[in-house]
Amino acid sequence: MSTGQQLFVEDLRVGLVYESGTYVVSADEIREFAQRYDPQPFHTDEEVAKATFFEGLAASGWHTAAISMRLLVESVRMGGGIIGAGSEVSWPRPTRPGDTLRVVSTIVEIMPSKTKPNRAIVKVQSDTLNQNQELCQRSVARLIAFRRT
Amino acid sequence: MSTGQQLFVEDLRVGLVYESGTYVVSADEIREFAQRYDPQPFHTDEEVAKATFFEGLAASGWHTAAISMRLLVESVRMGGGIIGAGSEVSWPRPTRPGDTLRVVSTIVEIMPSKTKPNRAIVKVQSDTLNQNQELCQRSVARLIAFRRT
Repeated sequence: MSTGQQLFVEDLRVGLVYESGTYVVSADEIREFAQRYDPQPFHTDEEVAKATFFEGLAASGWHTAAISMRLLVESVRMGGGIIGAGSEVSWPRPTRPGDTLRVVSTIVEIMPSKTKPNRAIVKVQSDTLNQNQELCQRSVARLIAFRRT
Repeated sequence: MSTGQQLFVEDLRVGLVYESGTYVVSADEIREFAQRYDPQPFHTDEEVAKATFFEGLAASGWHTAAISMRLLVESVRMGGGIIGAGSEVSWPRPTRPGDTLRVVSTIVEIMPSKTKPNRAIVKVQSDTLNQNQELCQRSVARLIAFRRT
């Protein structure tokens, strides 16, 4: 998909796919995010992390979510912006230091608003993959989309 | 609830409630998070934000989620840490500059693991409220909990 133009409800179809660029996640960034928002040893201390559930430093799931949002904003140019009413998020595997993430987003449902004729709710599944094509996050977001007309 | 001790599956009951401390969200922090992870004008520029859907500067939903995680980590002291397999998140209203957030978490379901007898999946609903007791985020997370024994 070309992502140069802004997308409105009229442009969207179920099954359309948008591919993002890439984002390299450093150990420093994993620790920095976690120290502020998810201060748990498996996210902040590589040595201590080895003896935990994660068996090594792992990014906070909310950090993976934030990076995925960055990649989504850059790759799906919704007219009026990407405005989420909510999202179902799962993390099948953690993001690790040095991972290169990208996001593949698919439109899975388009629901016209019953009360606001110029809007629709669009369900978008965004898969966040690492450099080995392994799934680090799947989100299914409900976005508010606007009609061009 | 006392939050001084670590919590294991044996300590958890459906209906138990945990209240967090508070977190004041500044306009600077809203802009800083958004510039890195959700660079859209309604999250980064107070003047431009006035003419958008949000009618003023609003925190990224993922920023509200990150702050809510911080408050959850500090208020629900799970043995082995808070490890989320996934979460359903919704944002009924945005977090605004100057808001004071807190999180009220309720255990809504405890599902013993079928394959790992020392674990359970615990569903926790965490409501993120502002200073007017308005709901900025509701999340229902699936956490991995461990047995003490």
